[in-house]
Amino acid sequence: MITSSTNAKVKQVVQWREKARERHRDRVFIAEGFKMFEEAPEEGIQEVYVSSDALAAGKNHAFMREKLERTGYELVSPQVLAKMSDTKTPQGILTVVRQPRYEFSELLKAENPLLVVLESLQDPGNLGTIVRTGEGAGITGVILTAGTVDLFNPKVIRATMGSIYRVPFVCEENTELAVKKLRGHGISVFACHLEGKTYYDNVSFAGPSAFLIGNEGRGLTAASAALADLYLKIPMEGRVESLNASIAAALVMYEAHRQRSIVQ
Amino acid sequence: MITSSTNAKVKQVVQWREKARERHRDRVFIAEGFKMFEEAPEEGIQEVYVSSDALAAGKNHAFMREKLERTGYELVSPQVLAKMSDTKTPQGILTVVRQPRYEFSELLKAENPLLVVLESLQDPGNLGTIVRTGEGAGITGVILTAGTVDLFNPKVIRATMGSIYRVPFVCEENTELAVKKLRGHGISVFACHLEGKTYYDNVSFAGPSAFLIGNEGRGLTAASAALADLYLKIPMEGRVESLNASIAAALVMYEAHRQRSIVQ
Repeated sequence: MITSSTNAKVKQVVQWREKARERHRDRVFIAEGFKMFEEAPEEGIQEVYVSSDALAAGKNHAFMREKLERTGYELVSPQVLAKMSDTKTPQGILTVVRQPRYEFSELLKAENPLLVVLESLQDPGNLGTIVRTGEGAGITGVILTAGTVDLFNPKVIRATMGSIYRVPFVCEENTELAVKKLRGHGISVFACHLEGKTYYDNVSFAGPSAFLIGNEGRGLTAASAALADLYLKIPMEGRVESLNASIAAALVMYEAHRQRSIVQ
Repeated sequence: MITSSTNAKVKQVVQWREKARERHRDRVFIAEGFKMFEEAPEEGIQEVYVSSDALAAGKNHAFMREKLERTGYELVSPQVLAKMSDTKTPQGILTVVRQPRYEFSELLKAENPLLVVLESLQDPGNLGTIVRTGEGAGITGVILTAGTVDLFNPKVIRATMGSIYRVPFVCEENTELAVKKLRGHGISVFACHLEGKTYYDNVSFAGPSAFLIGNEGRGLTAASAALADLYLKIPMEGRVESLNASIAAALVMYEAHRQRSIVQ
């Protein structure tokens, strides 16, 4: 059992938790909690740390016990696990997972692509929630462009509630290149934009479609928005000037889901 | 100019920021930033604190200057404002606003009520986002029941982006009483529930309607859910087990908005 927080493995986990550069160098991320361990694909699990008290509690769960036996794990003291953890009340299990890798070409190969392109999204909760909601709405992938918060940030991972393991994604240097590739493959690109004139539920997303979502404060850059086929308008009553980015994304993704369910 | 953070006014603001009990005793809340000052109804503004550097910058904005002249304000040093502020990069203006008060009967009097009932919602960001999205979707009020995070928590206020000034709300001791009052006034009550069988876009919300949204982790209590007229199902693809509470609320509120726009 590891009982010292100066242990080299513990220090490495803290580095992976805190620094995007360290995560990307070693191509891993930290997934906290039982649900994130349970849903992690076994071939992607690199290390597992379990606190002694959590192990005692987890012994009641056959699934957990069996998976831990297969993956192997390192026992740590509750104090050390608290040190490794990003949360105030850690669940006592922390998994080091290999970052999945996807190619842009894979995203284009989906049967009827439904993609989300995120530009300079800053809030980890928003990004994680979009991935989670996106899986629910049946999107086939996410494209992260310039300046978007690191997808493997622990707060993003937590907010995905496991969808990080299943929603394909790629990072692209800039929005322009991403949109050109999409349009080159016959995918219509729709910008969620405050200057949109066409209501989002008045447009067909039945064919290959991608939604362009911009930064929380500034929205899309003019150059990026100009690349879209159409601006979408989400109606807003009262004095609301804009919606939260994850809310806007949810509304358009679920509108696409609705239309595609009817078509089928 | 206040330059000491031991000043009694400064200490009081910190108390209001940190403690729900203090806020409720004095019936105020703290609104940070220029937008929140601009949108605050003048009759509700009790105190305004502006840092010397922000005042210099704000002098370019005629609207701001005029409003500050009408409401009056206290100049504070940037260091003192940072101490009063809840954010890492404060905008340099902080408004103490009187808590608005509404009666349940006012919520019932809306022409065609569209209400959201929140039970034990824990995340300030979710609550604030629901209020903001709710204004956008045209809801007529929010009902907060047992154990929901304080609406006047600074994180909630920030996430409302000003909607706190405009969306009517009441707090009710328990969900059962709230739902009984609603149903007694002919308002249909719909629970967003994982055991729902009826798709949310297959139900009419054209008449007086209320949506029941539960805690982020546990959902609605069995007792509360049992009070609803109908459980609503939001379709979920992949392995998603549930959606974020503010996302689920957004989808049903905007579905109601869509139906009501068509009816009109």
